[in-house]
Amino acid sequence: MSFAPWRGAIARALHRNRSLVYARYLQLATIRAGDRPANRTLVFRGFLEDTNQLKFVTDTRSAKVDQIQQRSWGEACWYFPNTREQFRITGSLTLVGGDECYADLQSARVAIWQELSDAARLQFAWPHPGKPRGQEQAAFEPPPPNPNQPVPNFGLLLLDPTQVDHLELRGEPQNRRIYQRDENQGWSCEEVNP
Amino acid sequence: MSFAPWRGAIARALHRNRSLVYARYLQLATIRAGDRPANRTLVFRGFLEDTNQLKFVTDTRSAKVDQIQQRSWGEACWYFPNTREQFRITGSLTLVGGDECYADLQSARVAIWQELSDAARLQFAWPHPGKPRGQEQAAFEPPPPNPNQPVPNFGLLLLDPTQVDHLELRGEPQNRRIYQRDENQGWSCEEVNP
Repeated sequence: MSFAPWRGAIARALHRNRSLVYARYLQLATIRAGDRPANRTLVFRGFLEDTNQLKFVTDTRSAKVDQIQQRSWGEACWYFPNTREQFRITGSLTLVGGDECYADLQSARVAIWQELSDAARLQFAWPHPGKPRGQEQAAFEPPPPNPNQPVPNFGLLLLDPTQVDHLELRGEPQNRRIYQRDENQGWSCEEVNP
Repeated sequence: MSFAPWRGAIARALHRNRSLVYARYLQLATIRAGDRPANRTLVFRGFLEDTNQLKFVTDTRSAKVDQIQQRSWGEACWYFPNTREQFRITGSLTLVGGDECYADLQSARVAIWQELSDAARLQFAWPHPGKPRGQEQAAFEPPPPNPNQPVPNFGLLLLDPTQVDHLELRGEPQNRRIYQRDENQGWSCEEVNP
């Protein structure tokens, strides 16, 4: 596997925006029941080794997991404030949960669990996200989960891009390139009007 | 019309993040042809007078306009870095273009055109967005459009919320509230688990 041609632009943007912790946050759109879009902020957790797939983590009890199982397409919108550029990354989503599916990806799921902070891991032991809030504060102070072994509701979420639309607002006038993946997993690139 | 109960939280977030110009940027998800989500950054331009509708501007030649005419639902994801809070705003989208539709909203469309900077207005005189880039730099240096009268491809985009999901990451542990609009245009609010 060779890196896709847009990988360099992402690496540069991450480097030039490294002073902002939230430069690693992006917004992922999916489709929910009733043909309505859903959109939420996620933390970019790097690329899956030897692939161009973006890694995220998610609680498999969250609504997005049902959405993805029904409609696997997603589009991430990633805006970098310091360099004033935007990447729109369209692709298919894969959820690697605690069941037997995607056995070849379980090691990646375990590795990312081990890399999380204690505070991030603790959230997966909190009560069911989106359910009515109970009164007991203790429910949000659970014993820390095992840092080596993911809890069953811990999910690795992968976005496998088929199109990347890169807009640089700082250009003269602005620059916009659309990268598209073909059937042979090769990539083309076209300059378009901003 | 009375302000929706989530309006105060948005006003506070805007105030507390006013040092960041990009705190007024949000990501709007729509659905494109082929049942795939689309997602892009837009600038929040305030609320339409005497309503709870969010205002944006768009070039009516852009792909989102076709998407909205097919599927009018959208979800905005708005992350505020300084206060570490997120609003997910679900609602229906209305495009007010240069044709005869929405005659009662034409004055709002003209007003927002007049409020834009010269640089922002000039972009609406650029070549067709998303088409292959030509070589002529002159196409991006058009004569300035009339600052009083919008060009035909200038659109006012309105998002009329039916649900607002507000997550505060700084809470102890975190706070999350979901506001929902009922058939009588009233709003309910429920505290849910983050």
